[in-house]
Amino acid sequence: MIIDVSKACDLLKKGDDILILSHQKPDGDTLGSGFSLKYALEKLGKRTRIECSDGFPSRYGFMYQDGFDPDKQEQFTPGMIVAVDIADTQLLGKKTEKYKDRVDLCIDHHPSNTHYAKNLVLDSQAAATVQLISKVIDGLGVKIDLLMATCIYTGLATDTGCFRYSNVTAETMYLAARMMEYGVDAYGINKLMFETKSVARMEVEKLIMETLEYYYDKRCAVIVISDEMVKTTGVSEEELEGVSAIPRQIEGVEVAVTLRQKGARTYRVSMRTSEYVDASRICVRLGGGGHARAAGCTVEGTLVQVKKKIIEQLKDAF
Amino acid sequence: MIIDVSKACDLLKKGDDILILSHQKPDGDTLGSGFSLKYALEKLGKRTRIECSDGFPSRYGFMYQDGFDPDKQEQFTPGMIVAVDIADTQLLGKKTEKYKDRVDLCIDHHPSNTHYAKNLVLDSQAAATVQLISKVIDGLGVKIDLLMATCIYTGLATDTGCFRYSNVTAETMYLAARMMEYGVDAYGINKLMFETKSVARMEVEKLIMETLEYYYDKRCAVIVISDEMVKTTGVSEEELEGVSAIPRQIEGVEVAVTLRQKGARTYRVSMRTSEYVDASRICVRLGGGGHARAAGCTVEGTLVQVKKKIIEQLKDAF
Repeated sequence: MIIDVSKACDLLKKGDDILILSHQKPDGDTLGSGFSLKYALEKLGKRTRIECSDGFPSRYGFMYQDGFDPDKQEQFTPGMIVAVDIADTQLLGKKTEKYKDRVDLCIDHHPSNTHYAKNLVLDSQAAATVQLISKVIDGLGVKIDLLMATCIYTGLATDTGCFRYSNVTAETMYLAARMMEYGVDAYGINKLMFETKSVARMEVEKLIMETLEYYYDKRCAVIVISDEMVKTTGVSEEELEGVSAIPRQIEGVEVAVTLRQKGARTYRVSMRTSEYVDASRICVRLGGGGHARAAGCTVEGTLVQVKKKIIEQLKDAF
Repeated sequence: MIIDVSKACDLLKKGDDILILSHQKPDGDTLGSGFSLKYALEKLGKRTRIECSDGFPSRYGFMYQDGFDPDKQEQFTPGMIVAVDIADTQLLGKKTEKYKDRVDLCIDHHPSNTHYAKNLVLDSQAAATVQLISKVIDGLGVKIDLLMATCIYTGLATDTGCFRYSNVTAETMYLAARMMEYGVDAYGINKLMFETKSVARMEVEKLIMETLEYYYDKRCAVIVISDEMVKTTGVSEEELEGVSAIPRQIEGVEVAVTLRQKGARTYRVSMRTSEYVDASRICVRLGGGGHARAAGCTVEGTLVQVKKKIIEQLKDAF
């Protein structure tokens, strides 16, 4: 059932022994939402616990209370289960999927939310779930403190590429401004979130840059990430995030293609287009799908064959 | 004489035939300040003209009124000269330096401002000069429109690395939020300003990445930009902006060094440090200077010799 923020606050006020769930492969928004809500509920005297199938990365350590140890949290049989920023129970992951039919309240901003929870607060216009959490905290009558503000700011910044994506609204900026008034170290957070690359990431970027090729009068740019590159640099999946921006950001490039090797003769193709080429139409022809500006498919063959197939399919697009 | 915003508004209200000056090598803040002030003064029925020694780059075309042609502006003998975002008359550049002793009003946020103008509005806590210009426009009683808001937003975004630098305050974010309420295309502006790289820039980055070397247990990273690279890629000075971020953003790197070749046996050294190494102390020893976190010097020798000199000087820093 879709409910509004005020109804969600009523439920939370009544509840206790509240288990908060963040999605697997946790990001700044699901953690920022989970922890700020946890801190707010604790101010109301509630017992809480937060769980995430993939644990709590040290990278986001500045959002955790001093001495936070996920394994030493209070143990209780949940009286209420709250999922934050989780569009689908498939995103719970192995450790917490056992709760999938028992979620009492979901707070989310994904338009694709599957309405799996008994009660759902959904605003797909919100740039981040923390935008809704901040309303819940206000609705609970809890005064926001520096740590909560840090969590909320982090969710906003990470889900918007530091206030850069098309999901940013005046409301997003007003909320970030308000959080900064609590003394949030925005500079430090953004440096850590956006301007820090691991040595392995730098090494793999160097190798990727060497594969950069242009087609169709430089309106199409292609990069390759081979199994070999991943192996020799030891780069993790998490560290590879966002490399598809490399071809996409080149001036004049309409079609940016990232070929990610997945075994000897298999490439996962990610295609992003800037303005007029329908990426979905091309990827569908190759057995994939997606949206007009972002689509994908999987193509079998040697690297040369895969490139040839894609470039041929683009012929009529230019 | 230092004056406040309200006094500046009095001067502007009294003035007419107002010449606005932006600094050479114009950026988003000097242009955003100049154009938004120009539009506001025009709403008050003033005749205005804007000048910049290096012209008006097409990259910032979205801030200019339809059909704006710098050479076809109204010609008049200035009744009042206003400099925006110009810390020193040396930054006027060739075409406009003739006005250097005649600036009636300067609006600026640089702490290094030399107080060359008859009247100076200075706030070194402001992240961008547009932050002051917005106050002036409010003080003039002019209603901000979409084009003015676009100029102000652009100044804020470009002078803060898209709300990422340490100069960002809650006030900066509140102002950006307010400008977005006027319908500013923040996404489009940021894409253009921050996520677009020329083909030449990509090519030079590829070559620079190949020069990346680590020292002292990967706590020091060094990159080289040779004359040859600049020549073969045809990259411009403007396009090279920000490449020193490449070594700086690597996790665990305390000292990031960029060596820019300037002739056969000369290298300009730029040193950025993260937390504890005093870059200034090291660069002073090599005949340069600067601040604790950002300093520079010029070193003569072959590339191998220059690197050796710098690495040796760093020995006692680690």
